[in-house]
Amino acid sequence: MTEKAIGVAVLGLGNVGSEVARIIEESAPDLAARIGAPLELRGVAVRRVSDDRGLPVELLTDNVEELVSREDVDLVVEVMGPVEPARKAILTALEGGKSVVTANKALLAQSTGELAQAAERAHVDLYFEAAVAGAIPVIRPLTQSLAGDTVLRVAGIVNGTTNYILSEMSSTGADYSSALADASALGYAEADPTADVEGYDAAAKAAILASIAFHTRVTADDVYREGITKITPEDFDSAKALGCTIKLLSICERVTGSDGQQRVSARVYPALVPLSHPLANVNGAFNAVVVEAEAAGRLMFYGQGAGGAPTASAVMGDLVMAARNRVQGGRGPRESKYAQLPIAPMGIIQTRYYVSMTVTDRPGVLSSVAAEFAKRGVSIAEVRQESMADEGARIVVVTHRATDAALSETVAALADHDAVQEVNSVLRLEGTSE
Amino acid sequence: MTEKAIGVAVLGLGNVGSEVARIIEESAPDLAARIGAPLELRGVAVRRVSDDRGLPVELLTDNVEELVSREDVDLVVEVMGPVEPARKAILTALEGGKSVVTANKALLAQSTGELAQAAERAHVDLYFEAAVAGAIPVIRPLTQSLAGDTVLRVAGIVNGTTNYILSEMSSTGADYSSALADASALGYAEADPTADVEGYDAAAKAAILASIAFHTRVTADDVYREGITKITPEDFDSAKALGCTIKLLSICERVTGSDGQQRVSARVYPALVPLSHPLANVNGAFNAVVVEAEAAGRLMFYGQGAGGAPTASAVMGDLVMAARNRVQGGRGPRESKYAQLPIAPMGIIQTRYYVSMTVTDRPGVLSSVAAEFAKRGVSIAEVRQESMADEGARIVVVTHRATDAALSETVAALADHDAVQEVNSVLRLEGTSE
Repeated sequence: MTEKAIGVAVLGLGNVGSEVARIIEESAPDLAARIGAPLELRGVAVRRVSDDRGLPVELLTDNVEELVSREDVDLVVEVMGPVEPARKAILTALEGGKSVVTANKALLAQSTGELAQAAERAHVDLYFEAAVAGAIPVIRPLTQSLAGDTVLRVAGIVNGTTNYILSEMSSTGADYSSALADASALGYAEADPTADVEGYDAAAKAAILASIAFHTRVTADDVYREGITKITPEDFDSAKALGCTIKLLSICERVTGSDGQQRVSARVYPALVPLSHPLANVNGAFNAVVVEAEAAGRLMFYGQGAGGAPTASAVMGDLVMAARNRVQGGRGPRESKYAQLPIAPMGIIQTRYYVSMTVTDRPGVLSSVAAEFAKRGVSIAEVRQESMADEGARIVVVTHRATDAALSETVAALADHDAVQEVNSVLRLEGTSE
Repeated sequence: MTEKAIGVAVLGLGNVGSEVARIIEESAPDLAARIGAPLELRGVAVRRVSDDRGLPVELLTDNVEELVSREDVDLVVEVMGPVEPARKAILTALEGGKSVVTANKALLAQSTGELAQAAERAHVDLYFEAAVAGAIPVIRPLTQSLAGDTVLRVAGIVNGTTNYILSEMSSTGADYSSALADASALGYAEADPTADVEGYDAAAKAAILASIAFHTRVTADDVYREGITKITPEDFDSAKALGCTIKLLSICERVTGSDGQQRVSARVYPALVPLSHPLANVNGAFNAVVVEAEAAGRLMFYGQGAGGAPTASAVMGDLVMAARNRVQGGRGPRESKYAQLPIAPMGIIQTRYYVSMTVTDRPGVLSSVAAEFAKRGVSIAEVRQESMADEGARIVVVTHRATDAALSETVAALADHDAVQEVNSVLRLEGTSE
């Protein structure tokens, strides 16, 4: 093969960066055949240059900006996180006419628009399959395979840490803290697990999914977010009694309000999911995304959502596509024209609620509790009352679909109700038709 | 928008063609925004031109060759089947510099090489996402998302008719004929169901999947094939007792023989699948494909595998991508260099077997039956013997992994064994690790 090599710079040499560098070396002949020209690793940006990084020391540099500006670099792979200095490096690369592959979900959830515009101006590619759900192809199906269809809804389990913790709680009956401790011990949770357990990571991914599914700029700040730290073993017991389990869902939806205006809703919260729903059986550190489109119906994508090798697979797929475009002188699909739908406020979203509360055990309580729902037009689907060891009783209510505003008001009223000692849990119920 | 319109010709006006024509009309503004230029339907090829086809009669023509040669046609959508005259029309279109989107699996399973070369010579796109598993993105993930990874195995349920029949048999205990009758009554099976129930359709799809997954030309004739017509309710009973169900699988695998040579195996047969395997829970007319790749691990894609709307969704995705390439003056990825691995003969493939036989009920039979397996080096994992109402007994044997050659020889010897009245069923067992 006599084609001019394609020069690659890798920013970051963590799990993913090391794996990408390894694949570029070890699969060189295969990659060259697929691309039509060899890939050549021209440099790797690291925080600290040393000779124990598993790569020739002359490839290493701690000067990111210089590396992404080099003339012999055609493609930049950014896997260093966090938002800065990655944002600046990517912009420099794009402005310099280099295509960029990134796995940086926090950055994308904040700056997709800015980055996409820079890529558009420079007529180069910006790919980010690895930013959502690891090796599972989700971005390319949404942007390309469904390009002629209308996406209605995307709902996924896109955070492996929380899914591991919830799966543990479900299968062993453990409480949140001990399931988190297990996850940490196994390396599934970071020392500071906040980004995962409070839903920030899932919200960043929801922002990216909503942006590409609905051709609308959605940032992480637009995403309604609740974490999993308050989920109790009792919630799992109730879920089981209702034929459900509990999952942290990232949901992006096209909603039409009572004013006829189409809006985009993006939200992350733990929800009860019926065991018959495909997402209910996605356990441990696995990820899955369900896409509903007008013509295609319901599609599901399932696989390993994290880890060096799976994430590197997604990066390499993007890298090969960007390199092929480079060789052929073409480029991948440009950014779609944006529909720019407004973001839907949470209050207009219709969901079902599961409310668990401790009440004083005396006649008439159930009826007066039920009245609080009825007063706000919230219809009850199911009620269960259990006497407890001490004087109280536990009431679990599952509602039909109602607006989030009406449901929140109901819960606020219950908290003030004199027979209600405590509202223990409020969770939404997803994946059912009524 | 002042861009020049992209002219589209649709060949065939069945379920899929009508739906494609409808989406081109009804989603015109949306499609134009995504493509950067409007799509315009320039003509539709039908067998018989008449004014009751739901489209202006001046768009219709029965002259396919003339339509695909028209100067104002940039893109051709072929959804008319069968192999001819589709093959000739597609070649004319490609040679005339038009990009082609086709859903014609029978044609692709026979002529991918010829068509891909014609597209390559003309520097145009040939897309065929709709040919395998309807709206489920499988082709694009394999060719693009996993372009930097090494695919090890693809196993899927890609025929909705047989999956409906097998799901029926499993859930109701019906026999094959009445489940087929149900499928026909519901429109899931054609008047002549041979292509589905004998596995020809699944084999064509396996050929396409194997070709793109392993960069090797595989035609339908290279695919080992068994249908589902001999599956009995007793097989489902045995499967259940073993914690399994029965599915018609299309399997494509990279295998390394004892000679160290890498080969591609493509095969279709009904197999026992453990209930814990993701494919076991794919029921009714749904399709699913599991892909195992070196870095990505195991991925699953799930959705509606057939029907006018889902198939049209896949066609429209390809159409938008081809149109975008047209507008930008680039084109999609060219065909990969082909690895051209040889096809593996079935005899060297290692699988597990389930063998059910009726034997004479006398002492020593089980031992002499087991000896037939042992003689050929086939290790037995599980045996169950049941006395039957009349004089015979039923023996079910599940083997460990062994070559298909050794297993076939064993079955032939059992058929000749004097204590074996009949070998009732021979099925493979997939989806387990030993």
